[in-house]
Amino acid sequence: MKQIDGGVTAAKGFEAAGAEAAVKYQNRKDMALIYSTSPCRVAGTFTSNVVKAAPVKWDQNVVARSPFAQAVVVNSGIANACTGQAGMDCCRAEAEHAGRVLGIPAEAVLVASTGVIGMAMPVERLCMGIDKLAAARAHTREAALAAAQAIMTTDTVSKEIAVEMQIGGQTVTIGGMCKGSGMIHPNMCTMLAFLTTDANISKEMLQRAVSSAVVDSFNMISVDGDTSTNDTLLVLANGQAGNKEICDEGADYDAFCQALDFITVYLARKMAGDGEGATCLFEAKVIGADNRENARILAKSVICSSLSKAAIYGHDCNFGRFLCALGYSGVSFDPDRVDLWFQSQEGKAVVYTQGSPVAYSEEEATRILSAPEVTVVADMHMGDAQATAWGCDLSYDYVKINADYRS
Amino acid sequence: MKQIDGGVTAAKGFEAAGAEAAVKYQNRKDMALIYSTSPCRVAGTFTSNVVKAAPVKWDQNVVARSPFAQAVVVNSGIANACTGQAGMDCCRAEAEHAGRVLGIPAEAVLVASTGVIGMAMPVERLCMGIDKLAAARAHTREAALAAAQAIMTTDTVSKEIAVEMQIGGQTVTIGGMCKGSGMIHPNMCTMLAFLTTDANISKEMLQRAVSSAVVDSFNMISVDGDTSTNDTLLVLANGQAGNKEICDEGADYDAFCQALDFITVYLARKMAGDGEGATCLFEAKVIGADNRENARILAKSVICSSLSKAAIYGHDCNFGRFLCALGYSGVSFDPDRVDLWFQSQEGKAVVYTQGSPVAYSEEEATRILSAPEVTVVADMHMGDAQATAWGCDLSYDYVKINADYRS
Repeated sequence: MKQIDGGVTAAKGFEAAGAEAAVKYQNRKDMALIYSTSPCRVAGTFTSNVVKAAPVKWDQNVVARSPFAQAVVVNSGIANACTGQAGMDCCRAEAEHAGRVLGIPAEAVLVASTGVIGMAMPVERLCMGIDKLAAARAHTREAALAAAQAIMTTDTVSKEIAVEMQIGGQTVTIGGMCKGSGMIHPNMCTMLAFLTTDANISKEMLQRAVSSAVVDSFNMISVDGDTSTNDTLLVLANGQAGNKEICDEGADYDAFCQALDFITVYLARKMAGDGEGATCLFEAKVIGADNRENARILAKSVICSSLSKAAIYGHDCNFGRFLCALGYSGVSFDPDRVDLWFQSQEGKAVVYTQGSPVAYSEEEATRILSAPEVTVVADMHMGDAQATAWGCDLSYDYVKINADYRS
Repeated sequence: MKQIDGGVTAAKGFEAAGAEAAVKYQNRKDMALIYSTSPCRVAGTFTSNVVKAAPVKWDQNVVARSPFAQAVVVNSGIANACTGQAGMDCCRAEAEHAGRVLGIPAEAVLVASTGVIGMAMPVERLCMGIDKLAAARAHTREAALAAAQAIMTTDTVSKEIAVEMQIGGQTVTIGGMCKGSGMIHPNMCTMLAFLTTDANISKEMLQRAVSSAVVDSFNMISVDGDTSTNDTLLVLANGQAGNKEICDEGADYDAFCQALDFITVYLARKMAGDGEGATCLFEAKVIGADNRENARILAKSVICSSLSKAAIYGHDCNFGRFLCALGYSGVSFDPDRVDLWFQSQEGKAVVYTQGSPVAYSEEEATRILSAPEVTVVADMHMGDAQATAWGCDLSYDYVKINADYRS
């Protein structure tokens, strides 16, 4: 497996586009299209929030019932959540219009939205946007980038990746893009992420691979603890790589999963590091836990702690806050056996061993905590299980962005 | 029952003091004493955090095992948490020293600390502080205020209250003080709160009343979602009111509980409204829930949402964030039946009914959301249960306070 340049158009047969539709934002791309030249198997994971956006309900239906999918239409600016029946009608109108323009069934069109919740959708402008997208779509690097840029809201950078691997003598490619960057606390799902692959894989194995991949990637990140109404991860597989269909577990499935895990962790880290107002990627690694699930809970508790996040922002080695967050995670452990240290490209500072503080240089700790990626490691001394979670620091800009977001 | 002026010295036989001991802060009161002229029954609730501060462990032992308690020694500045064996030794030294000076057993002395976690305690300065406190203790209004001021950390105002009621023909008084204001997300307990009463009540009934009172008061507030290592609520009852001992349920117990509930809700609201960086008290009221526990979970989910808190700070009627927070609370409900409105001293703005947005004046909503106390009400239309939770907005100053806290 190797990483290559590219995004959602890296795999064979996939086209993309980004366009200006003035859904809410002016003078910037705010609609994206992903299109496959042949029908795709599709798998997805969606928000666990009881309040689900209309596009989530539409897509869940398509993934469960449609024989195939072939296009995804995405807009930023308005989330089409808490919009009642009008929101569902909008999804149908988008899918039917895209189906007509692209010459595919409406039931093969997935839709996704991100932005302000509770605002009405401008259906006409969306349809005009779809016309532009269909005309502009292309199997090029630039088209993938345009799509990745169009789905951004408060994101400061677009997020793309592509990898290729050999499966059964054929080169198989997976590409993807995603967006954050607030209301990020995915639960069995993610914010908006779209993966495309030319792998030939059964729908069942595709879903199994995706559901497995999110557990240690998108489900291990948090920007602000708020699980969105719109979280959606979709994977389209058109089979154009020509490999023998992956229908069960084995070397081919493992190779595909390895690449998928690499991509989902890469995109999840990008999302965390570009959290609203973030000045750094804040990684929590728990080792020596008694089991994997407890390791995950402990790691996630630390990256969700407002006080730990504020300490990272202040480059302040206030290690008690990190121990405190482990302590209220809900996982049982012996505080008197815990070791804790901070590490980054600047070095490593051990601050706590076997339940007691140890002497360390504040100056050195501050330097370590000032790096663009900071990791805190907790060794629970209970077993061999480990897990990693990713978040970001809590800055003035998080507040600024979210006190003013709608205006 | 009526509210009266006063704090922890309002009840008969209770003395208090505040003193400067330079534990960490300079030139301000940082140690407090509560002392009863006769032995007290004592009840308490403590943090559920696995990482418990040394004073929490000391007090849990006193509450469980000592025949009576007679004094509480509190310091601000350093939390005596994550301090290993040295922290436990410090608690014992404090209790033994206070016992000698006050002429009571060390096992009758409760201790509490609040401040930075992981820093070593200056035992000698604490003992010198205890000498000052013992000399200054008095049964006066001023002494109660001095104690309430001494336990403040990032609090901007001291928090006290007192009420009196008639029980069995006798006037019974309860007084209390508490402090916030960061790392506030109590769980079966609270931050630091101390209540004193001259009620004659059995230890068992006192503990029952306290455990019941915290459920809808301190356990329903959050400033930042971080459950502290030090949360402690202690109630001392010296029986000097002379009422017939409350040994079981009935009118006397009910009168006592009513007063206790009033006091704990009052102090909890004060704590939430004075959260770190807060510009307003943010109240979430859930009505029409299917049961009480679900109502509590829903209300608490809303006041814990960073995005909802930031919207309150921005006076922004971004109602979708509040619905989103209900949705990820873990409670099951039908989003299509929910009504939502905002209210304050400025009026009421209905923004969502039966699962769809309704037209409202943004100008009026902004005015309502600019009040010093803002309430969001969600009617789930599932039953008759309701609950209220209290938090505060998320401001630049929360980040400022917590990025710089140790320096």
